[in-house]
Amino acid sequence: MNKIFNKPRTWLLNRFHLHLLPNQWWRQYFQLSESGDDLQPKSWRSVEGLVQCSANYVPLTPISFLERAADVYRDRTSVIYGSLKYTWEQTHRRCVKLASALTQLGISPGDVVATLAPNVPAMQELHFAVPMAGAVLCTLNTRHDSNMLATLLTHSQAKLLAVDHQLLDSAVAAIHLLKKPPLLVIISDAGDRPPSDLKTNAYHYESLVDGGVAGFSVLRPTDEWDPISVNYTSGTTSRPKGVVYSHRGAYLNSIATVFMHGMAAMPTYLWSVPMFHCNGWCLAWGLAAVGGTNVCLRRCDPKDIFDTIVLHKVTHMGGAPTVLNMIVNSPEDHRKPLPQRVEIMTGAAPPPPLVLSKMEELGFRVSHLYGLTETLGPGTSCLWKPEWDSLPTEDRFKLKTRQGVRHFGLEEVDVKDPITMESVECDGKSMGEIMFRGNTVMSGYLKDPKATAEAFTGGWFHSGDLAVKHPDGYIEVKDRSKDIIISGGENISTVEVETVIYSHPAVLEVAVVARPDNHWGQTPCAFVKLKDGFNCDGQDIIDYCRNRLPHYMAPKTVVFEELPRTSTGKVQKFLLREKAKVLSSIS
Amino acid sequence: MNKIFNKPRTWLLNRFHLHLLPNQWWRQYFQLSESGDDLQPKSWRSVEGLVQCSANYVPLTPISFLERAADVYRDRTSVIYGSLKYTWEQTHRRCVKLASALTQLGISPGDVVATLAPNVPAMQELHFAVPMAGAVLCTLNTRHDSNMLATLLTHSQAKLLAVDHQLLDSAVAAIHLLKKPPLLVIISDAGDRPPSDLKTNAYHYESLVDGGVAGFSVLRPTDEWDPISVNYTSGTTSRPKGVVYSHRGAYLNSIATVFMHGMAAMPTYLWSVPMFHCNGWCLAWGLAAVGGTNVCLRRCDPKDIFDTIVLHKVTHMGGAPTVLNMIVNSPEDHRKPLPQRVEIMTGAAPPPPLVLSKMEELGFRVSHLYGLTETLGPGTSCLWKPEWDSLPTEDRFKLKTRQGVRHFGLEEVDVKDPITMESVECDGKSMGEIMFRGNTVMSGYLKDPKATAEAFTGGWFHSGDLAVKHPDGYIEVKDRSKDIIISGGENISTVEVETVIYSHPAVLEVAVVARPDNHWGQTPCAFVKLKDGFNCDGQDIIDYCRNRLPHYMAPKTVVFEELPRTSTGKVQKFLLREKAKVLSSIS
Repeated sequence: MNKIFNKPRTWLLNRFHLHLLPNQWWRQYFQLSESGDDLQPKSWRSVEGLVQCSANYVPLTPISFLERAADVYRDRTSVIYGSLKYTWEQTHRRCVKLASALTQLGISPGDVVATLAPNVPAMQELHFAVPMAGAVLCTLNTRHDSNMLATLLTHSQAKLLAVDHQLLDSAVAAIHLLKKPPLLVIISDAGDRPPSDLKTNAYHYESLVDGGVAGFSVLRPTDEWDPISVNYTSGTTSRPKGVVYSHRGAYLNSIATVFMHGMAAMPTYLWSVPMFHCNGWCLAWGLAAVGGTNVCLRRCDPKDIFDTIVLHKVTHMGGAPTVLNMIVNSPEDHRKPLPQRVEIMTGAAPPPPLVLSKMEELGFRVSHLYGLTETLGPGTSCLWKPEWDSLPTEDRFKLKTRQGVRHFGLEEVDVKDPITMESVECDGKSMGEIMFRGNTVMSGYLKDPKATAEAFTGGWFHSGDLAVKHPDGYIEVKDRSKDIIISGGENISTVEVETVIYSHPAVLEVAVVARPDNHWGQTPCAFVKLKDGFNCDGQDIIDYCRNRLPHYMAPKTVVFEELPRTSTGKVQKFLLREKAKVLSSIS
Repeated sequence: MNKIFNKPRTWLLNRFHLHLLPNQWWRQYFQLSESGDDLQPKSWRSVEGLVQCSANYVPLTPISFLERAADVYRDRTSVIYGSLKYTWEQTHRRCVKLASALTQLGISPGDVVATLAPNVPAMQELHFAVPMAGAVLCTLNTRHDSNMLATLLTHSQAKLLAVDHQLLDSAVAAIHLLKKPPLLVIISDAGDRPPSDLKTNAYHYESLVDGGVAGFSVLRPTDEWDPISVNYTSGTTSRPKGVVYSHRGAYLNSIATVFMHGMAAMPTYLWSVPMFHCNGWCLAWGLAAVGGTNVCLRRCDPKDIFDTIVLHKVTHMGGAPTVLNMIVNSPEDHRKPLPQRVEIMTGAAPPPPLVLSKMEELGFRVSHLYGLTETLGPGTSCLWKPEWDSLPTEDRFKLKTRQGVRHFGLEEVDVKDPITMESVECDGKSMGEIMFRGNTVMSGYLKDPKATAEAFTGGWFHSGDLAVKHPDGYIEVKDRSKDIIISGGENISTVEVETVIYSHPAVLEVAVVARPDNHWGQTPCAFVKLKDGFNCDGQDIIDYCRNRLPHYMAPKTVVFEELPRTSTGKVQKFLLREKAKVLSSIS
């Protein structure tokens, strides 16, 4: 009744799971008459000798990765969290039991199960256990306040919320705002008790796992297009939208992402990307495909990062630019020499040259990825050509800031005029909107056909990001279409201005937004956070820019303050634009 | 008319390619009434906001790999053949033009295009160009005689045969045996002319490419289950059967195989596996997915292998045990120090310890794969766990001979009792038949529903190979079920006997088969080829076995001669069994 993802009936189940169907088997499922030739969907089915059955057809789903890992990588470490360690065999058993427990609690196929937790092992397990109960995972951002949580729980119609004990207060406050509150599952080693006046039933995560049935029959999707998760957008520009991922999309993107990370079998991955963000760029599933080890950290600080890399011989990690900043600006005594080169993938904003060079010195190799929640995480990477190794450092770092080229899960990524849908010239100058097409693009926005239709206009996903294409086909983001500044009729890429300000030795972080201006329409306004112990004033920044950019691009206003960020590290420019507006109205 | 692969009508085309279909769009395609609730295939389609359109759904096909490679890896080398080099951009352009030329010759969707050629660049191009014309590729074994070729051309109803100039005589002889001969396309640098009395029209490959239209609209599959290729089995045990691969299976297997080879982006692959064998283990397509370089050799001899590895910095290669034998037994002056470790994948038979150790000394790392034409090439590999590195050499080599565990494209690989379909114990002793299940298993045997039904009995593909499962889940093949010898009621694994004989210092090659025996039913009969300059007699071999095996397992007969092999390096045991029968009848 309050289920939003209706499951298919037996139609697909029968279609794919009957063994050795007779030649004309499809007639009954398509309700066609024996004589009705005109109604026949003609295809491979008419070729004698070919058959689709359980021997050669399985709907694509990341559940397969876990089942294989439990067999192939059975005794390899799946999860490390402090002193806790599981093998893939153990993780699989725990997930099956948890799926059974969820079913016992009344979660049925198509129901939504929400989470509110940092990168703890339960988050990794829920990525499999929820789909194994036939349900849809909705990982909520841990920085949302209780009002936003209540809004998203209502919108997603979540029937259960698994919450980390440290976030219990927000969850309880949200639940008290709801008419139909979800069941509550508390993730805690300490056995925290929920408040006594709770409006819903509450359970302990570990008790659920303990009480689950190890022989539970996992509920596989009958149609690979069935949803596996809903990810709400981080809301940099608007209210969060529920982005739906299918089992097929998640499967294909997991493999593409693993390959994009350059992972061989059995990597060791340090979780600094939040798993609630695009399901950890689909690596929450992908690591099972390659038998990797999930090294979980409740929160990342530079000391923990270095200690963990050394202790567990981490091979790969990911992180927003803030994570890179944190590493390069960490105190000397928190750093350690790395046991081997660590591949680190970064997204959200292009890594500034200074950060890149310091990261290399520390023993990391930084790769630059780009994507959106709607593309299931990173869809492009600045794929490194071996011949670039011999370029001068400055050229190498300049190349590294490009968003690059698509992974093999995507069909096409292009920069287009959003009106004519023509591709822009590959000249490094002509700007257009980045658009995506392929199996690793979302199924749509949950309960928002209008937004889905807009996003998919012309059969491409419109990213809202403005970019150029270089002669070698690599794309480079210039700005969010909503962020671009138009000053005296000239387009100003805020990313370009930010890159210059970033290179100033005193600057730790910067964001440039439009400030309304009676004369120019808009002028650039820079919000800057300085490094500890450094000092400079607004005029220094303005002069610095004027020496390096056309004058109209230099900020007219500089504000020194902490930048508001989403939990995924993106600067919330809409908040800064509001501030810039206020500045204009009072000046 | 004489087309065997009928294409679907507009049904699937409309289903997937209309943009932003209205909520009830599917009614018209499923021919359902507005009121007929009971007929509705309920699924994700009923969730508001989700839609399947060209932005987020594309039928899986290896054609995507080439289109992406032309963009992402555009200036990287795609093919090297002697002094000839192409980039991926050039390869793509040539394939589009060739596809257009095939269409101009009358090849239409669903038609079969056959090839008869060694590993020359045209073979790599035909792997893309044929599907890009909507047609189905049938790569014939270059060692077939004209009678077999005629049989397979008739069975596959090939409309065109692309033949290498060196194999023109066999092709022409085959064509003269046919009532409806295919068109002939001659692959040749020299511009060879076909004989004047040819019964069909003949064209030059390069002229077709030259004459093709670069702007040709590539014909993508509308249903990813559509066939992309037919591979005739090598016929070790029976007459070749036409194994059909789908675009979906080929796509998924290409990626799994690339990962199983441990390939990072842009590997350099030396073609010693014939491309006509399982489409080169699907690497003919897979290398495009990762922007690899195809190093083509018309034929492999050890000198060429070493020279090519050094010249082009080869990173990966594959090959039947004969290729490994050829390398380790090559004259000293043909060898060269390798510029880096070369990963070599071998299949067909487990590599003997002696060969493994010599290969390691020479700078190769050998991995052992296992699969069948029906599993699109290798389906399992002896996945190497890092902790095994420190084992004694003998234990390491013993582990390496296992067939191992499945790749991530397969759903399940198990060893089962073929009658009860129960899994055998994981004790390294209980024997059963290896069975496969998953998306990378064939669609079926062309025009042979009976063989398909038998192969898929119980919803699993039956390999016909007998194996055990070790306690760690790794499988080890003991024999083909048709090869096993039953002597005095005891099962004798011919593979085990062969492994012992292989370790004899004088033995280059060995095959053991059953010889009919009035007393024992059957006894082991060994066919042996000695190394150059070595000498020993049958009794030596028998004694050698008796010292290392239970007596009943030692051969009673030893024959010294050249072993008959298929072009893929498999020993044709059925021919040896015939010989052993003759021995029994005359003795």
